[in-house]
Amino acid sequence: MENINDLQNEVKKFRDERDWKQFHTPKNLAMALSVEVSELAELFLWDDNKSSFDTAINKREHLQEEMADILIYLLSMADVLNIDLSNAVIDKLSKNRRKYPIEKSKGTCKKYTEL
Amino acid sequence: MENINDLQNEVKKFRDERDWKQFHTPKNLAMALSVEVSELAELFLWDDNKSSFDTAINKREHLQEEMADILIYLLSMADVLNIDLSNAVIDKLSKNRRKYPIEKSKGTCKKYTEL
Amino acid sequence: MENINDLQNEVKKFRDERDWKQFHTPKNLAMALSVEVSELAELFLWDDNKSSFDTAINKREHLQEEMADILIYLLSMADVLNIDLSNAVIDKLSKNRRKYPIEKSKGTCKKYTEL
Amino acid sequence: MENINDLQNEVKKFRDERDWKQFHTPKNLAMALSVEVSELAELFLWDDNKSSFDTAINKREHLQEEMADILIYLLSMADVLNIDLSNAVIDKLSKNRRKYPIEKSKGTCKKYTEL
Repeated sequence: MENINDLQNEVKKFRDERDWKQFHTPKNLAMALSVEVSELAELFLWDDNKSSFDTAINKREHLQEEMADILIYLLSMADVLNIDLSNAVIDKLSKNRRKYPIEKSKGTCKKYTEL
Repeated sequence: MENINDLQNEVKKFRDERDWKQFHTPKNLAMALSVEVSELAELFLWDDNKSSFDTAINKREHLQEEMADILIYLLSMADVLNIDLSNAVIDKLSKNRRKYPIEKSKGTCKKYTEL
Repeated sequence: MENINDLQNEVKKFRDERDWKQFHTPKNLAMALSVEVSELAELFLWDDNKSSFDTAINKREHLQEEMADILIYLLSMADVLNIDLSNAVIDKLSKNRRKYPIEKSKGTCKKYTEL
Repeated sequence: MENINDLQNEVKKFRDERDWKQFHTPKNLAMALSVEVSELAELFLWDDNKSSFDTAINKREHLQEEMADILIYLLSMADVLNIDLSNAVIDKLSKNRRKYPIEKSKGTCKKYTEL
């Protein structure tokens, strides 16, 4: 299932079967995203950058679940607020192309405010 | 562009044009996700659940950008670790169906450990 | 033990008995703080503002532990970087007094950039 | 000002002069902590562990402000919920001594569940 709308519908179906939409306010979903992202971060807590690749291999199943949780809540928020996530990404990439022109940003991790 | 693989390719292309893959370790991407999710959460910081819907309307453009940033980093992590995000979501929903059977979880926001 | 330096020394002693200073880089400690703060946030995840006071009563012991974890990591970071946390707070309050003059900020939760 | 109660009183005074207690629900303060911790984490976003020490030197003033913000919100939560933060830390260290006995935990960053 590679269509993002189909995926969103699956998430919505799961939610509605449990009558959970009542809990899905923007504030709550933002907080749920924080919690899930920290569960992902915890996997790499004491790693350095290099060893985090090994951790990603050793804890692959757990990692996939945490990444899924993040996308599930993101799709839930998109559904509740009627936001087209694909369009949002395409628009943001366009904006980022202007903020980070290739010639200035190539090979550097500096923020656009410091370029 | 509703296909999640196409979206991932767009994100990858943006990254590679800037030679940024070198910064995209699992640990760094997890930290980047934390930062982006908090920028989303900040929009609703002093709201209550009800008023967060108004905020979502008033700050819609900003909100979409923050949601896009989260998905961009999530797709970047999926790319680096060769994880199929759609499958990850489908698998997690299956697992959640077992953790949260409809008859036990309907209408309650209790965690599965408390059901 | 109400002296913040004494408290910091207790945290340092606990750390050094376990030879954990080697893991306490600024990046790792920042990530540890993210993880602990999200564990605190999770307690109030599906609350609204009002019910979060009830949750704070019902989960008081758990809440205290999460708050302690945050302060322990903050004191660990202060120790590693030789930062005087008390002075940092006093200085920040001074700065905030200029950013949020009473007559402009009284009774409003607007950010200083919007005052 | 090294006494944590004095520090808490300063924070409380700042808050009450602005009539901000009304916004300081446990849920909001937990969210505020998430936002501030991520602002701290952002300073080290693309660092590795080693270079994060250099960043801590180069961005020392900014770093101190973010650490102060975290402690300010933590003291605000302690005030609202009438929690003794010093005692909470002392109690948590005791508990951690049992979870992480020196002979098992020395020199390892494993979680107690994996020791």
